[in-house]
Amino acid sequence: MAKESIDVYYFNTSDYHLSEYVPAYFKTIQYFSNFSGSLATLLVDRKEAYLFVDGRYHIQADKQAGIYGIKIVKLGTEGAKEPIPFILDHYGKDVVVGLDGRRTSTAFGQKLIRNQIVYKSIDIYSKLIENRPALENCTLKSLPIEVTGKSRKDKIKDLLYCLGDRCHIVDNLECISYLLNLRGRDIAYTPVFLAYLVIYRKDIYLFADIERLSDDDLDSLFADEVIIRPYDSYYEFIGGIRDSAIIMDFNKTNFETYCKLLNKGNQLYDMRSPIEDMKSVKNKVEIDNSRLAHIYDGVAMVRFIKWLKEIDKTTINEYDAANKANEFRLGYKAYDLSFSPIVAYNANAAMMHYSPTSDDSAVLDNSGILLIDSGGQYEEGTTDITRTISLGATSQQLKKHFTLVLKSMFNLSEVKFLKGMSGCQLDILARKDLWNIGINYRCGTGHGVGHLLSVHEGPPNVRFSLNPNGTEVVPLRAGNILSDEPGVYLEGEYGIRCENELLCKYGINNEYGQFMEFETLTMCPFDLDLIDKDYLDDETIKALNSYHKKVYETLLPYLSDEEAAFLREATRSI
Amino acid sequence: MAKESIDVYYFNTSDYHLSEYVPAYFKTIQYFSNFSGSLATLLVDRKEAYLFVDGRYHIQADKQAGIYGIKIVKLGTEGAKEPIPFILDHYGKDVVVGLDGRRTSTAFGQKLIRNQIVYKSIDIYSKLIENRPALENCTLKSLPIEVTGKSRKDKIKDLLYCLGDRCHIVDNLECISYLLNLRGRDIAYTPVFLAYLVIYRKDIYLFADIERLSDDDLDSLFADEVIIRPYDSYYEFIGGIRDSAIIMDFNKTNFETYCKLLNKGNQLYDMRSPIEDMKSVKNKVEIDNSRLAHIYDGVAMVRFIKWLKEIDKTTINEYDAANKANEFRLGYKAYDLSFSPIVAYNANAAMMHYSPTSDDSAVLDNSGILLIDSGGQYEEGTTDITRTISLGATSQQLKKHFTLVLKSMFNLSEVKFLKGMSGCQLDILARKDLWNIGINYRCGTGHGVGHLLSVHEGPPNVRFSLNPNGTEVVPLRAGNILSDEPGVYLEGEYGIRCENELLCKYGINNEYGQFMEFETLTMCPFDLDLIDKDYLDDETIKALNSYHKKVYETLLPYLSDEEAAFLREATRSI
Repeated sequence: MAKESIDVYYFNTSDYHLSEYVPAYFKTIQYFSNFSGSLATLLVDRKEAYLFVDGRYHIQADKQAGIYGIKIVKLGTEGAKEPIPFILDHYGKDVVVGLDGRRTSTAFGQKLIRNQIVYKSIDIYSKLIENRPALENCTLKSLPIEVTGKSRKDKIKDLLYCLGDRCHIVDNLECISYLLNLRGRDIAYTPVFLAYLVIYRKDIYLFADIERLSDDDLDSLFADEVIIRPYDSYYEFIGGIRDSAIIMDFNKTNFETYCKLLNKGNQLYDMRSPIEDMKSVKNKVEIDNSRLAHIYDGVAMVRFIKWLKEIDKTTINEYDAANKANEFRLGYKAYDLSFSPIVAYNANAAMMHYSPTSDDSAVLDNSGILLIDSGGQYEEGTTDITRTISLGATSQQLKKHFTLVLKSMFNLSEVKFLKGMSGCQLDILARKDLWNIGINYRCGTGHGVGHLLSVHEGPPNVRFSLNPNGTEVVPLRAGNILSDEPGVYLEGEYGIRCENELLCKYGINNEYGQFMEFETLTMCPFDLDLIDKDYLDDETIKALNSYHKKVYETLLPYLSDEEAAFLREATRSI
Repeated sequence: MAKESIDVYYFNTSDYHLSEYVPAYFKTIQYFSNFSGSLATLLVDRKEAYLFVDGRYHIQADKQAGIYGIKIVKLGTEGAKEPIPFILDHYGKDVVVGLDGRRTSTAFGQKLIRNQIVYKSIDIYSKLIENRPALENCTLKSLPIEVTGKSRKDKIKDLLYCLGDRCHIVDNLECISYLLNLRGRDIAYTPVFLAYLVIYRKDIYLFADIERLSDDDLDSLFADEVIIRPYDSYYEFIGGIRDSAIIMDFNKTNFETYCKLLNKGNQLYDMRSPIEDMKSVKNKVEIDNSRLAHIYDGVAMVRFIKWLKEIDKTTINEYDAANKANEFRLGYKAYDLSFSPIVAYNANAAMMHYSPTSDDSAVLDNSGILLIDSGGQYEEGTTDITRTISLGATSQQLKKHFTLVLKSMFNLSEVKFLKGMSGCQLDILARKDLWNIGINYRCGTGHGVGHLLSVHEGPPNVRFSLNPNGTEVVPLRAGNILSDEPGVYLEGEYGIRCENELLCKYGINNEYGQFMEFETLTMCPFDLDLIDKDYLDDETIKALNSYHKKVYETLLPYLSDEEAAFLREATRSI
């Protein structure tokens, strides 16, 4: 640092594409600090190191990094400052901050500039890390039209129509995978691959190493007029772009990219990629395939629930249960999980991002509840489901809360609404019965779900906050797939969540306009043992019974007699 | 027009302050065309005259103006163009348009500029209209602190705090009346007075004729450092403003004002006046007084409903019923109506802005329903209420629709929600039960209500549309008073609306944050004869019974024995 005249170095958990999950190559904070969480910032000056973590990771950061003398800045607690105010406060205006511009967002970089903080973009890792894992380099897989429902050529045509003469920079891996109908396995859970995409003067440039593509795929990319360049040559290429109107999402494009484009006669527009909107509207093939993926996922979940209901709970812990759920999925039709499952017993489930590990996992008992939030990657689609399951005796209060959570979930899934509404206008349906008893859940009600991609995707969502410049105001469209997951989380007591995935589709069209409605894709029963009918209205009882009937009829052909008998009982009318 | 080189003259229905209702002086379209509706545009070229009206006025414009050879442009029908596209299409780019810049909004003027239409601001009326009514010049009335709850001095202090060094132009009459705690009667239904207000270099200038103020009021305005200038001297004064940052609402400030301020080193910011936000949050005194106004209004309404229920309906028409309702209000505590009442029988009520007149009014019958939407101006507050009343036999379908409308109204009024939500996030509560059966109402669910001011006021509202730049996203605040008025309107059959006024206030505050809830201010029963309990859930029945109990208990002290007996029956538990 002294050699480079750097006072403090800024490490973060992103890769070059600002991904949620990252390849091993980018786990540099873990290397330097021993902290393994998915989101953190590490500031290292010439004497001290400071690790910034949010509420999810306060305890874990102490355990993993604090013991080595790293100072933990617990964001959300009194006096804890975010990295930029911390830098200004701690080092003053004259500080020189080192960072890797490829791993910070343009939006973050602009904040540095606005605060007049001097920065120097240096890749300090490669020089310091011994035996750094290689960048992933697996062979990519082309998806056939029977799976994607839309050819690469047609997707590119639609994109070029949106862009007109404008240049477009895409660092985001999901957008690239979607547009090109290609998948990789560089990152856990999300089948994407490291690449950049640039649309410049109506030509499509893919920056990804040619060895990763089969000859057939190369031919077909060539036929679709996609120009392939080495992954390494991206920054040199964009350095040559000038006198262009450029669309890029400042939150999803790295700062190095921004710096390379600046002051060359270019006009930079901070705009969401049109690919995100295309991707969020599933076509008929994607929808039909998703329905099948949810049937497979439902079969695995029913097997898991049956296993859990029948076993002596004192003989297993959360980690065992998680492994068992993974086994049921991967042993049936899933080729991967879509995220690391949350399997949490009683009070552990009140921590929203709790995930059991082999050495830290609660033993279950024949009472209380287990929350399982999990999902799979299938050849047909991506799933995400949460069930809360009774393990034996539970309190009346818990049943009341479970029943209101279930009712809240149905309040949203059963609504009919006029086209043009956005998720933030529907969100109250999933909260009002809980708000009525003074309880809120501190997270969104629903997120978009990708198709053969990330289990979390935008732009549409169902949230209570309303940022007029945010994705909260994006209208829901037929073909969107969204989660519907209200909950009750009582610290130290228990966590309850019910989650189905919903497909948004057209309803009736009459003199008042086009109505929209949801079809529930998830196929798995809710635990009737946790219901207190005093808290259900007739409409919800009708919706629940009709849902359970459909689950039974849909899954029946896939089940053994014993499993079918279990499901019949689990889906009985109430 | 030839003398002034004008090809076409643009008349509209506004006054200099872009008011909803205007003094007689400004009823120039009526003078020239005989059309008496509240919103229209008249274009007169050297040969023809074109009257532009929206759906409410298609028939009325034919009847009143069409018969004199004026061409009626029926907006909303196929091929009908708005004035600016019409001008471009009809006269071409080289046209010279005459208009009175004081009577068109800045937003409209900017549209002319964007379309490169040459305009000339000329007050053509005064030269042409014989016996033009004089501008209103009544004496103004100062409101005491016991009525306003906040002194003029404190309001000005808060405004100056919001503005900082910025200049602020206020053409809007309600804002001026609110800020200065002054009222007039220049305009029907809304107790405002013609004036302009300018805050320039931290001085408050009121442009209103000094003769309108009593010596005491002059003294007190002087004490509060309000500088009074003649109404006529406004444009000269603002012509002298330069090198200032100026806040003005382009939709509520006239175009002449904009032109006077332009290009003098001024920076103009299109922003809602902070006075609007101040005004929309009622203080304790305003709230307590409003509660009383609603009791008085409820007494008048109960008397009206009793009269209507008891009379032989074949002997009266809508106009008679409207007059009777006015009598009950004005004969008790109201000093004015807050708007021209809508009293509509069966199919007439499906026309949302229907208002009976002495020569056009349907005779009632001892069957069907009467919708009455009306309100009063009281010394204590301003009211707005709608009831739909059974006159005898009604269909099962009508009862179903009435019951769902009533349930929809309670769905909104009973909600508890976290602070920060805006009306467009609650709107679905009042629509979902109607959307569920494929019916929508083509208007907002609720509007703000002024205190001793206009019955319609912003910024908060409850609407289904979500314009990220509009008032739809303004969070609801404790102290807002809003209407809650869902409905069903079936063309040619009937119109149903239930409307209560709601006060937004703080609910519980706990670890999840500050909850908000509504208190219903309106005190008047809903017609139990129209309810079909099959369409009510337990929650709504509970809410209705509890509301009716409160209405009975609250109004009882103000009623005769006979009236009390009627109300007891009308508010019985179901």
